[in-house]
Amino acid sequence: MPTISKKGEQMPQSPIRKLVPFADKAAKKGKTIYYLNIGQPDIKTPEGALRAVKENDIEILSYSKSEGSETYREKIATYFKGHDIHITAEDIVVTTGASEALLFVFGSIMDPDDEVIITEPFYANYIAFSTASGVNVVPIISKIEDNFALPSVEAFEKLITPKTKAILICNPGNPTGNLYSKEEIQKLAAIVKKHDLFLIADEVYREFVYDGETHYSILQEKGIEEHAIMIDSVSKRYSMCGARVGSLASKNKMVIQTAIKFAQARLSPPTYAQIASEAALDTPRSYFDDVIAEYIDRRDTLITELRKIDGIKVSKPKGAFYCVVELPIKNSDHFAQWLLEEFDVNGETVMVAPAGGFYSTPGYGLNQIRIAYVLKKESLIKAVHILKEALKVYKD
Amino acid sequence: MPTISKKGEQMPQSPIRKLVPFADKAAKKGKTIYYLNIGQPDIKTPEGALRAVKENDIEILSYSKSEGSETYREKIATYFKGHDIHITAEDIVVTTGASEALLFVFGSIMDPDDEVIITEPFYANYIAFSTASGVNVVPIISKIEDNFALPSVEAFEKLITPKTKAILICNPGNPTGNLYSKEEIQKLAAIVKKHDLFLIADEVYREFVYDGETHYSILQEKGIEEHAIMIDSVSKRYSMCGARVGSLASKNKMVIQTAIKFAQARLSPPTYAQIASEAALDTPRSYFDDVIAEYIDRRDTLITELRKIDGIKVSKPKGAFYCVVELPIKNSDHFAQWLLEEFDVNGETVMVAPAGGFYSTPGYGLNQIRIAYVLKKESLIKAVHILKEALKVYKD
Repeated sequence: MPTISKKGEQMPQSPIRKLVPFADKAAKKGKTIYYLNIGQPDIKTPEGALRAVKENDIEILSYSKSEGSETYREKIATYFKGHDIHITAEDIVVTTGASEALLFVFGSIMDPDDEVIITEPFYANYIAFSTASGVNVVPIISKIEDNFALPSVEAFEKLITPKTKAILICNPGNPTGNLYSKEEIQKLAAIVKKHDLFLIADEVYREFVYDGETHYSILQEKGIEEHAIMIDSVSKRYSMCGARVGSLASKNKMVIQTAIKFAQARLSPPTYAQIASEAALDTPRSYFDDVIAEYIDRRDTLITELRKIDGIKVSKPKGAFYCVVELPIKNSDHFAQWLLEEFDVNGETVMVAPAGGFYSTPGYGLNQIRIAYVLKKESLIKAVHILKEALKVYKD
Repeated sequence: MPTISKKGEQMPQSPIRKLVPFADKAAKKGKTIYYLNIGQPDIKTPEGALRAVKENDIEILSYSKSEGSETYREKIATYFKGHDIHITAEDIVVTTGASEALLFVFGSIMDPDDEVIITEPFYANYIAFSTASGVNVVPIISKIEDNFALPSVEAFEKLITPKTKAILICNPGNPTGNLYSKEEIQKLAAIVKKHDLFLIADEVYREFVYDGETHYSILQEKGIEEHAIMIDSVSKRYSMCGARVGSLASKNKMVIQTAIKFAQARLSPPTYAQIASEAALDTPRSYFDDVIAEYIDRRDTLITELRKIDGIKVSKPKGAFYCVVELPIKNSDHFAQWLLEEFDVNGETVMVAPAGGFYSTPGYGLNQIRIAYVLKKESLIKAVHILKEALKVYKD
């Protein structure tokens, strides 16, 4: 019998996925579950985006341009100008989600066995894309005690080898909710210039920034035009996760030309979703104001409630809609499964993401969970209450 | 300055893409161009598919399941049953086009430097997916004189090495229009069983089979359940190239489990396009009868007209909507560009696909072109007339 590849064997399955069967079983038994585990917002997609798809006049659903439709790329460039990011349509490649953007970037700049340094904890699928690309992840730890601030320049430089091709950050961060400051981005800029590396920033949570802070994009930093590659997506911004439309942007022409070759091989991004995404760019500012106000309210509620629990540490998120929580437990994989299988408060329980999957350093994150505050305030209060009661009786 | 990867440098750009700027320039100068170069059908997308998207009641455009929605996979399985292919929803992974299906398959079964034997001439992007996956293509030549029949078992066995992991065919074939018989599939089955290889078949043109012939899928062949992986897509079948929905199917559970890990990393296939694709499965048989009748009429017209030209060879396509034509020229890249830049008949010219890009054996296909008969009969007659006049004056 022919066998699968080593790469296929090594492809990780996220610890959240492993929990899904237990959640399904619990739900079937009639348990109510508060899903704090996923980044699927409950916010409505902007009406204009939905309407544009309903009102399309397509007769032949044909290929679009591989790099994305001209009009859409022009409008993306205009959107970025409004965020003080000055790029043109030629600097942008439209992709099938940020996922594909990362695959194109990894393929364009890294060969098998090359290394990418990623600030840890990180979005679990970065490992999957690295494995799929044959690239090695070199994690650099950031700590809950420091609110997941950027590690020191010295810590980065210790990890740089001749195989290092890039540093990858997520800003604002999933799972940390951290927002890197302008000064932190400038530290990274100095490193990539000195060591001739690419700097990749996953900035899909750009709009989700709280407390009057401002997001500083790597594309705003002068002097790293040839180094900086920015990843974007409509998924979170417009609550359009199912569209599967993202983009990559860089002033480095070789990177764009190469990414377009990858884009041409897969022909085009999805046409309906591009129609929705283009219309979404006309979403009025008030939509975001409402969404941001809602998330701040949720975050404040969540943090306040969590801090009432003895023996836990919480990072204070400045962006995105996640936070990492350290619990007085030994194994969050087991704890998360136990919550679904064996625990409830009046028939209700919670599903959380064990944080081990956000680390590649062995042993890290085992006493941490990620909470996505994508539920309404009342649900969050109930969910934290359940967590509190659970910790009273849980033994590991 | 950081540099792009070797892989990125090696990513091929198809010769058709290279012609696009010349076509755009010619069109701007007011030349009428008959586009015989691409597989974008002019057939209307089934109304039911378009309507389903317009009538969707989505409020939050959320992720679907990574392996595709349950209902859609069930319906795909039912569709296949109607074609005497007996698989269940669990044997199917929905992908973002056949392109992504091939990437998942390559990732799941092959490691860098493994080899895949592909019958040549082949779909140009097979090279791109192989390069992106670090896999080496080993071409096996099939000839226009034999109407691109399957090469002999001995010819295959000469190419099999310890690195060989799979044989890849496209059936019906792009660019050849060839349809492999049941006997030819059985020859392949014997080879993959004997040498413990996977057999991958790109069967996206399944419905486009002419002259009373029947398509025989690799999934119909008994005894190769663990070897056979079938690639499918809605793009050509329902004239929905812009949907970006395909699938892979196999009875090999490890292959499916591994492909699902790749699918989970990129979260989900596009939601709107899945709605259209699911509805497309209800397209009445009469739609295909009309489409097939139209293609047969076009093919017969094209072949009849081409045979009136002195010094050319034409393969007689039994399926898909392409044919390969051998011309009395030395370099079809140059000829195709010359047609766009320097030739016209009363302001009209044609764009064809130079066939070099469909071969990886150096020097092959340089006197061949691929014609896609995706235009109306009258346009095909005019286009072939232009080709005939062009060959009278062209010198290379």
